[in-house]
Amino acid sequence: MSPARRLQGVKSSPVRDLLALTLRPEVISFAGGLPAPELFDVDGWTDAFAKASGDRRNLQYGPTEGDALLRALIADRMTHRGVPTAESDLLITTGSQQALTLLTTILLEPGDVVAVEEPTYLAALQCFQIAGAHVVPVASDDQGMVPESLAEVLARDHPTLIYAVPTFANPTGRTQPRERRQEIANLAATHNTWLVEDDPYGELRYEGAPVPPMASYGDKVLYLGSLSKIGAPGLRLGWLRAPQELMPTAVIAKQATDLHTSTIDQAAAATYLSNTDLNAHVAMLCGAYKHRRDTMLNALPTTVPTNTTWTTPEGGMFVWLRLPDNANTEHLLPKALSNNVAYVPGAPFFATTPDHATFRLSFTTNPPEEITEGMHRLSQTFNTPTKQTHP
Amino acid sequence: MSPARRLQGVKSSPVRDLLALTLRPEVISFAGGLPAPELFDVDGWTDAFAKASGDRRNLQYGPTEGDALLRALIADRMTHRGVPTAESDLLITTGSQQALTLLTTILLEPGDVVAVEEPTYLAALQCFQIAGAHVVPVASDDQGMVPESLAEVLARDHPTLIYAVPTFANPTGRTQPRERRQEIANLAATHNTWLVEDDPYGELRYEGAPVPPMASYGDKVLYLGSLSKIGAPGLRLGWLRAPQELMPTAVIAKQATDLHTSTIDQAAAATYLSNTDLNAHVAMLCGAYKHRRDTMLNALPTTVPTNTTWTTPEGGMFVWLRLPDNANTEHLLPKALSNNVAYVPGAPFFATTPDHATFRLSFTTNPPEEITEGMHRLSQTFNTPTKQTHP
Repeated sequence: MSPARRLQGVKSSPVRDLLALTLRPEVISFAGGLPAPELFDVDGWTDAFAKASGDRRNLQYGPTEGDALLRALIADRMTHRGVPTAESDLLITTGSQQALTLLTTILLEPGDVVAVEEPTYLAALQCFQIAGAHVVPVASDDQGMVPESLAEVLARDHPTLIYAVPTFANPTGRTQPRERRQEIANLAATHNTWLVEDDPYGELRYEGAPVPPMASYGDKVLYLGSLSKIGAPGLRLGWLRAPQELMPTAVIAKQATDLHTSTIDQAAAATYLSNTDLNAHVAMLCGAYKHRRDTMLNALPTTVPTNTTWTTPEGGMFVWLRLPDNANTEHLLPKALSNNVAYVPGAPFFATTPDHATFRLSFTTNPPEEITEGMHRLSQTFNTPTKQTHP
Repeated sequence: MSPARRLQGVKSSPVRDLLALTLRPEVISFAGGLPAPELFDVDGWTDAFAKASGDRRNLQYGPTEGDALLRALIADRMTHRGVPTAESDLLITTGSQQALTLLTTILLEPGDVVAVEEPTYLAALQCFQIAGAHVVPVASDDQGMVPESLAEVLARDHPTLIYAVPTFANPTGRTQPRERRQEIANLAATHNTWLVEDDPYGELRYEGAPVPPMASYGDKVLYLGSLSKIGAPGLRLGWLRAPQELMPTAVIAKQATDLHTSTIDQAAAATYLSNTDLNAHVAMLCGAYKHRRDTMLNALPTTVPTNTTWTTPEGGMFVWLRLPDNANTEHLLPKALSNNVAYVPGAPFFATTPDHATFRLSFTTNPPEEITEGMHRLSQTFNTPTKQTHP
């Protein structure tokens, strides 16, 4: 198949189409996975950019691997999170999305098999489809990817890589517990298969004990990190943590892709990380997001039809729901939009057979009062009997 | 061939290896294609980033196509340069290098043929090699790509795309005149083959009359533009101008690659282009770079051995030279570096059989007095008799 044909086959970017629909200011959108803009540390970033843009070296070309200070600061942060990391283990990328694309470039040929938990992050699915990979689903339950299902897929399909969002997954919000991480890392090691851990949400935990990243459980883990959710997504700063055997190839691919990531954004981020107490900022975010999550979860019983099921995420950005009675959330979306509220239908998150009754709600983008109003509009969309009718 | 194997085969990034050698402060480097850092408009960029970073919308995710104001301003600029362009014809990319990568993603399958003028930009060659393309050289003369040679390649090899830097080429500094542009654009149209015009240097003309970009000569031209040489490369801002038939596919590929280019860098660039007289800045650059070019060209007769040949670029950044007597510029490089001067050997710029006697000098990076000193060191490297010995 030609690349143009293959790209036309890529599920034509439902998030993009949706975001277009949700740009009307009167729409309360639970669709996009956007952090709360009013919680950005504008003063901190303004100071950082003032310092970075005043140094003419930051307007020049820079090294492909990334800003040395930024790499050192991120290595430190990862080490403190339980993943011992040296500067040389890291490649700065233009968002963690680019890190994933680089991995498909250096590891996948058309026809290669990729194993993904189902449902999973739809832009990862796009990435694999563009690479011409054959995507095979692994079953997931309330604790994420199911090891028995993964073992089956590994034995039967011999995937080149396994992709997962093990912590506060997109779209389900689920988190793999320690034991399961170890099991999955062992499976990857036994089958000598790369395991890609996409971890943009890991630091956004609102309850429960932290679980170390998968990368601390085995050597076959390729870790994708991001400043988008704890810093600011507009800077497009992410990173790949990979073993030395892969790094030179990843660097060549990065160079051919965009030479390097924005020098000035990297310098500003290094300044920001040096001058700011990011842990305090993350704690503030977690407090605010916990309140938003709770507002949404508390509203759910009176928002969605009886027998709807949903996840209760301990962190991250998303609640994943399933309507009863063979409902179709794509068919319901126009009604939601006419009620000035938006969500993402679940189908595009499935690599194979979609479950059309599923959908995703993001609770981070809107303040609590907007969430309450949005959930009210959603209840009208679903014709959910209001509280008053249940005396 | 597996992608990892293919990447190992990619000429292992000679520019990178070289840049590492030239980082010693005592080295005067004519190697990298870097703009002069002391000519960056630091004040203008500082103001632009102060304004951009103070608006929290610029820290959030943005549209994949790019910042609307930036696209409008670039469309205007292209229209004024003779290429009528609407905002919707443009996709903002993370440097023009990314625009080239996106084109390989959407247009090339492994085994497809790409026709390139020889010698050509080495990171473009890397890009095509990573895509698994079969690169076929087209002969070039003092006016760039030779139409008769291109006609032969089109008839024989049926390339999927043709790649050229028609204005102040990298590495040769040569420019295709109008008539040749029309001939080449016609050939591309007749054979229904995409022609990629990479144009990072087009506005840096020091003498002679401007020639409109190839994109004004035909519909099969895909234009790659860049702010790196007229603004600042650290921001990694480039663009693809493509016909509507390709744009949706290019946007999906861009989204899968890095979602979008840095929101804040785009907003700063839009502010900068709105508030600054970029034409005046470019005129200043042209004055300074002309002086540097002349300093280098004037020094050449006493720098290089008799019977060395070189190009006399009307603009851009590079002089391309050929030593006599089967000299090998790779073998001479260590001696140059021991003399604390650097250049790029020509071999990696060839898709097929390299001419080892060739090399590239960049005249933009260093001020005139450094160029004079560097050329002196180069004359010692080549054992060129000094002026005094030619009374």
